[in-house]
Amino acid sequence: MRDALLGAAFQLFLERGYEGTTVDDIVALAGVGRRSFFRYFPSKEDVVFPDHERCLADMKAFLDEGDDTADDPVRRVCDAARLVLRMYAENPTFSVQRYRLTKKVPGLRAYELSVVWRYERALAEYLRGRSAGRPGGTLHADVVAAAVVAAHNNGLRSWLRSDGKGDAEAAVDQALGYVQETFGGSPGAAVAEAPEDVVVVVSRRGAPLWRVVQEIESAFGRD
Amino acid sequence: MRDALLGAAFQLFLERGYEGTTVDDIVALAGVGRRSFFRYFPSKEDVVFPDHERCLADMKAFLDEGDDTADDPVRRVCDAARLVLRMYAENPTFSVQRYRLTKKVPGLRAYELSVVWRYERALAEYLRGRSAGRPGGTLHADVVAAAVVAAHNNGLRSWLRSDGKGDAEAAVDQALGYVQETFGGSPGAAVAEAPEDVVVVVSRRGAPLWRVVQEIESAFGRD
Repeated sequence: MRDALLGAAFQLFLERGYEGTTVDDIVALAGVGRRSFFRYFPSKEDVVFPDHERCLADMKAFLDEGDDTADDPVRRVCDAARLVLRMYAENPTFSVQRYRLTKKVPGLRAYELSVVWRYERALAEYLRGRSAGRPGGTLHADVVAAAVVAAHNNGLRSWLRSDGKGDAEAAVDQALGYVQETFGGSPGAAVAEAPEDVVVVVSRRGAPLWRVVQEIESAFGRD
Repeated sequence: MRDALLGAAFQLFLERGYEGTTVDDIVALAGVGRRSFFRYFPSKEDVVFPDHERCLADMKAFLDEGDDTADDPVRRVCDAARLVLRMYAENPTFSVQRYRLTKKVPGLRAYELSVVWRYERALAEYLRGRSAGRPGGTLHADVVAAAVVAAHNNGLRSWLRSDGKGDAEAAVDQALGYVQETFGGSPGAAVAEAPEDVVVVVSRRGAPLWRVVQEIESAFGRD
């Protein structure tokens, strides 16, 4: 019945537009009562994004279940973000239709932003827990979570714009790879788990080598 | 008159709650007509966030006016984000009241997310322009814009939670400093503009020094 309601809703959204379709229209086409609709979907917006609640719960469970002593936290949140991609990739036609609809309807756009925000908060909360008590821990957590979401969405959107024809996983893997390169081994990770700290030295290519070595010795606490 | 409407609105929001206050209540307390209200504010939400439209316009103007051949793009978007902070810091009492109100009212939270999204898009569009045609340019732009917004908001919120008593600029400077360290000199910036590349060397603190120097020599192309 849930699938029948979804099918009816999207047929009507495409024919009459989202705003021009009521819940009564949807249940009439699906041949069920209003009460059945609201058993599956709290509101009309939820028909457009029917799987986000489940996906958010899966993401939190995935984050809770990992081995915190072994996993790199940046890698873990990247893997958690991939659960969202998988939900989209399960049904390309539906995802592409929804993408087009969401771009056109401001109310859906706002709803989607609130969903994305909840994913981002789930990732940030996890990272905050992993870096608890460390100076700059919440800042690092918030920035990494935002970067992961932005990269995931960049990959996801490029796949949606290709009408779901390209390789969704490859697009998102590449985007998340960039975030892992940028933040992997940063304060949330290596300083916490590795017994040996990581030292990052940034220098201009033109700097004299003796000057660079001096800086490294000082960073390593060997001078 | 705009200030009188703002004052009346916030007094009522605090007394009766946001949902329990109508535009009629606000204009009655301010002693003006409904038409005056809608001249200044398109909706009730806009009374809560009265300066974001101006700030967004200021941000776009600031980004347009800079010298693209000289400025580091990551630094520029960080400076653009500081315009938002300044708007909040201009009126700490109002900003703290609004922060508390927004946390309690889901509709305002959704409105705020849409505003934050527009700032993020403005920063990302600018960065996309600066890295146009470069491989990974849109990904880099989207990730940096999200990181800047997350860092800014982390600093801003910690100031708001201190009831506007701490140093707002210092909190945000520190947060944005972290983003500049992370992304400054990355593909959008130094590789494009600086004649001397930046070399980043990452090593474990426990590594033998000779091994580190070897890696650096190789990174600097001196071996």
